Amino acid sequence: MFPKNAWYVACMPDDIADKPLGRKICGESMVFYRGPEGQAVALEDFCPHRGAPLSLGKVENGKLTCGYHGLEMGCDGKTVSMPGQRVRGFPPIRKFAVIERYGFIWVWPGNPDLADESKLHHLEWADNPAWAYGGGLFHINCDYRLMVDNLMDLTHETYVHASSIGQKEIDEAPVKTVVNGDEVITSRYMENISAPPFWRMALRGNNLADDVPVDRWQVCRFTPPSHVMIEVGVAHAGKGGYDAPAEHKAASIVVDFITPETETSIWYFWGMARSFNPQDAALTASIREGQGKIFSEDLEMLEKQQRNLLAHPDRKLLMLNIDAGGVQSRKVIDRLLAQEATQVTV
Amino acid sequence: MFPKNAWYVACMPDDIADKPLGRKICGESMVFYRGPEGQAVALEDFCPHRGAPLSLGKVENGKLTCGYHGLEMGCDGKTVSMPGQRVRGFPPIRKFAVIERYGFIWVWPGNPDLADESKLHHLEWADNPAWAYGGGLFHINCDYRLMVDNLMDLTHETYVHASSIGQKEIDEAPVKTVVNGDEVITSRYMENISAPPFWRMALRGNNLADDVPVDRWQVCRFTPPSHVMIEVGVAHAGKGGYDAPAEHKAASIVVDFITPETETSIWYFWGMARSFNPQDAALTASIREGQGKIFSEDLEMLEKQQRNLLAHPDRKLLMLNIDAGGVQSRKVIDRLLAQEATQVTV
Amino acid sequence: MFPKNAWYVACMPDDIADKPLGRKICGESMVFYRGPEGQAVALEDFCPHRGAPLSLGKVENGKLTCGYHGLEMGCDGKTVSMPGQRVRGFPPIRKFAVIERYGFIWVWPGNPDLADESKLHHLEWADNPAWAYGGGLFHINCDYRLMVDNLMDLTHETYVHASSIGQKEIDEAPVKTVVNGDEVITSRYMENISAPPFWRMALRGNNLADDVPVDRWQVCRFTPPSHVMIEVGVAHAGKGGYDAPAEHKAASIVVDFITPETETSIWYFWGMARSFNPQDAALTASIREGQGKIFSEDLEMLEKQQRNLLAHPDRKLLMLNIDAGGVQSRKVIDRLLAQEATQVTV
Repeated sequence: MFPKNAWYVACMPDDIADKPLGRKICGESMVFYRGPEGQAVALEDFCPHRGAPLSLGKVENGKLTCGYHGLEMGCDGKTVSMPGQRVRGFPPIRKFAVIERYGFIWVWPGNPDLADESKLHHLEWADNPAWAYGGGLFHINCDYRLMVDNLMDLTHETYVHASSIGQKEIDEAPVKTVVNGDEVITSRYMENISAPPFWRMALRGNNLADDVPVDRWQVCRFTPPSHVMIEVGVAHAGKGGYDAPAEHKAASIVVDFITPETETSIWYFWGMARSFNPQDAALTASIREGQGKIFSEDLEMLEKQQRNLLAHPDRKLLMLNIDAGGVQSRKVIDRLLAQEATQVTV
Repeated sequence: MFPKNAWYVACMPDDIADKPLGRKICGESMVFYRGPEGQAVALEDFCPHRGAPLSLGKVENGKLTCGYHGLEMGCDGKTVSMPGQRVRGFPPIRKFAVIERYGFIWVWPGNPDLADESKLHHLEWADNPAWAYGGGLFHINCDYRLMVDNLMDLTHETYVHASSIGQKEIDEAPVKTVVNGDEVITSRYMENISAPPFWRMALRGNNLADDVPVDRWQVCRFTPPSHVMIEVGVAHAGKGGYDAPAEHKAASIVVDFITPETETSIWYFWGMARSFNPQDAALTASIREGQGKIFSEDLEMLEKQQRNLLAHPDRKLLMLNIDAGGVQSRKVIDRLLAQEATQVTV
Repeated sequence: MFPKNAWYVACMPDDIADKPLGRKICGESMVFYRGPEGQAVALEDFCPHRGAPLSLGKVENGKLTCGYHGLEMGCDGKTVSMPGQRVRGFPPIRKFAVIERYGFIWVWPGNPDLADESKLHHLEWADNPAWAYGGGLFHINCDYRLMVDNLMDLTHETYVHASSIGQKEIDEAPVKTVVNGDEVITSRYMENISAPPFWRMALRGNNLADDVPVDRWQVCRFTPPSHVMIEVGVAHAGKGGYDAPAEHKAASIVVDFITPETETSIWYFWGMARSFNPQDAALTASIREGQGKIFSEDLEMLEKQQRNLLAHPDRKLLMLNIDAGGVQSRKVIDRLLAQEATQVTV
C-alpha cells in the first residue's frame, strides 16, 4: 500500500540522457525518456502493438520508437505512426505526470488529472549555488515504510553504523517528535561530545579542527509520500550548536527519497547536501563515497527484517518513544491512503 | 497450451553421444539416450524405484542404468533388471516416440500410438550434399508462440537487428500472407536496394560483389507444431531476384525449430542452411557465429515481452497486416489443439 | 513433517565462536550464540522491537545486542534492557532448549518443557580419545527423509560413488534389516573381495597392506529423529571381518546428522569417526577431504529426485528389500509424528 497520487523521484536526468529507461514504480512498469522539447516523459512500458517493453526502444529527436517493430509512440501515450500502418485506432497507453526539478525526475504514478506541481515541496539546497549535492541509488527488497522507520529513528546509527557516524551518545540523548500537518519532525541534540569519524572528515572538509568537543544535532523531517530530509551536523562545542555561525560548524542535509517499486521493494535515492565548501568537488566525492558505504550497511538489516515480518505477519511490533517518528509518519501515510481510497488513481 | 501429438526437435545427436540427456519438453521431463541398436530413445526421466532422474545414470552398450541404485531400464520403459530384485511387477514408465532424421532427434511428447513418421515433413536441405547447415540452441523464457510471431513478422529485423540484417526497406515493402492448409506463408520482396552487412558477408562468401544493388526476399513458412523455415537471400539486382540463377545470388534457409519446454519457456533450435559453397566449413562457422549473435538480440525482447503479457493477461494486442503470419499460424495451432482435445495425448 | 520435540544438530561450536549465527531449523528461524557463562543459547531470530534478525547483532561478554537499535536480549528470550527504555512490558521471544555435547550444538526445536537430555543418545566415539573425528556440512534441497533413505540403503555406493567406495559386490550381498524399538539397523557383509580406493587409503592409513583380499561390512543404524550412524570397515580376509582384532582392520563410523531446514531442505552434517591412528591429524584431514568429495556426489541426485517427487506427488514408489532400512526408519518417524500430534510443540 502506497499513495499513488503523489510525487516520487523516478530517476536522475543522466539516466535518460542517451536512451529510454525502464523502471517499475509503485507497481507500474514505466518507460522514461526525453520528448521533442527535451521534456521528461513517463509512459507505460508496454507497446500497444504486441506488448514489447518500449524501454528497449530508441529515442531520436525526442521520438520514442519501439525496438521490436518500429511503432512510434507519442508523449501523450498515443501512437504517432508505424511503418505501413494506419494507427488512428490504436489503443493509447497510460501517460504519467512528470516534473523535472531540483536535479531529479519526479513521477506521479496515480491519476495525472490530479497531479499538482505545487505539491512538490521546495528544496532550498537544490537550487542554491551555496549548496553542493552528491548522492546515489540503492535497490532494496523491503517495504518503503521500513526505510521511513529507519530514517526517522537514528538510534540505529549507534549499532548499524558504529564505525562512522554512530556513537553511544545518540542512544542517551532523548528524541522529540512533533507533527505539523503532514510533516513529522524528530529531533535530537547532543552537547559537548567527540565527533565520530565521518564528522571529523566533514570538519576537516570545512577547515575546522576535528579533535575538539562538538555539539551535534539530527533533525529528521518526513514529508509525504515518503521523503525524509535530515538536518545533521556538528559545531565546535559552545558556539551555538545547530544555530552556530557557519564558520564554526559542518552542517548538511541527508536527503532520502524512497520510491516504492513493489509492496516489498524500493528504489532508495540517498544523498547529502551541504552548505560548506560547495565548490569543492573532491569533498563532494569523498562525502558521497563515505555516505554510500555507510548507507549500504542498512541493506542486509532491512531485507532480513522484511523477511522476518513476512514470516510473522500477525506479530505486533513495539512502538517506543524512539519509534515515534516512524509511527507518526505512518499515520500520515495512512491518512493519505484513506483519502486516495475515495479518489481515482488510474 | 501446445500440441503434444506432434514432432518436435528434442536435441542434437551429439547431445546423447556419451551419456543420457535430461530435457523437459512440452512439460514432460524426458531422458534421451541411444539404445542397443544405436537408436535414439526417449523415456520419462523418472526411475520407478525411487523417482531418481534416469538422466543422471549411465548408458553402456545401449543399456540405461539408473545412477542411484542400479535399476536397468529398457527402451520400452519396462525395468529389465535390478541387482538382487525380481522386477516383473515394477511399474513401467512412459516411452515417447522418437525419430532421428535430418541431423536432429525428434520427439512426439503425446500419445506414441498416434506417432506418425509421415507427419515429419521433408527437409530438402538436410539430406542433400548441395547444402550446408550450421546452427545452435537457445533457452528462452517465453511462450513458444511469441517466437512464432517473431519469425513470421520479419519487420522486427529493422529494429532488433539494425546493424546486421535490418534495413528500412523491410518496413516499406508490404508483406503477403497465404494459408495453405496447415502451412502459413508470409513473403516480402525488396528490389534494387543495398545489402546490409550480413548479406554482404554472404555475397562475398559466394564470391559475388557486395557493393552493388541487390534484390532481397524473405519467405517465411510456418508448419505445425511450431517450425518456421525462412527462405532468405539477395541476388544482384535485375538478375531475377528469388528466381535468379545460383551464380547471381546468395540464398539460404533460416531454420527455426521451436520446442516448448513449459508454457512460458522454449528450446529454440536455430540455424541456417545454404546452397552456395556448401563445402566451405569456415564459411559455415562464420555464418553460424553471425547468426548466433543476431538471434541472441531477440532474447531480452521476447523475455520482457512475455513478462509484460503475464502482467496484463487481459489486454488485447493489435493484429496488424504485418502480424498476419503469426495470427494465421496461431489459428493453425488452435485448430490442432482443438483436435487434440478429442485425442488421447498420454 | 518433522518431529519437533527431538534433538537435532544445529551447528558446530566454531560457528558461534565470534558472533551469533542465524540458522533456520525445522522451519524456525533461530539465533545461536554463547551466553554469559559460555553456554550455547538458541532464541527466535526476531527482535521484539521491530522484527530485526538478532543474528545480525553482536555478542559481548555473553550479552546479545540487536544490531539495529541496541535492544539487549537475555538468554531466556526476555529483553534485558534497551537504551532509554523501560523494557518490562516487552513481549518475550521463544527460547529453544540447547545442549552442547560430543563436539556439536544440539537444539530441540519444539516445546522446551519436554526437552529431555537423556533422549540424546550416547556417542561413544565422540568422548573417547581412542577415536578421531572429522566432518563437514552441506546444505541440500531435499526432504530429510530422502537422505535417510539414501543412508539406509548403501546399494547406491556402487553407482553414485563408483570410483571411491562403490563396488559390484555391494549389490550382490543381501542386506538384513532389524528394528529394535526406535532403532533400525540394516547390515551387509561381504567376504574375500578387493578393497575399493577409499578403503585402500584407509588400510594404508592404518599401516596395513592394501592389495590383499578383505572382508567388508556396513552396519547402518537409524535413530530418531534423523540420525544415521554407519559402522563401516574392511579387515584382511579371514581375520574375523567385523569382529577382527584392531590390528587387522580399518574400521570407522560414518556419522550423519540430518537436520531439516524446511520441508524440502536440510542441513546435512556428515563426518567420519575412526579408532585407528586417532592422533594422525593428516590422516583425519585426508579422510575428511575424501569423504567430502564422495558425499558431494549425492547432492545433485537428491535434489533432482526431490524435484521429480514434487512433480509427481501421487506416484507410489517401490519399496524393495534394499529399501527396508528407509521404510522402517520412516515408520519410526511416522510414529513420532503421530505422538507429537498429541503434544504441544511450541
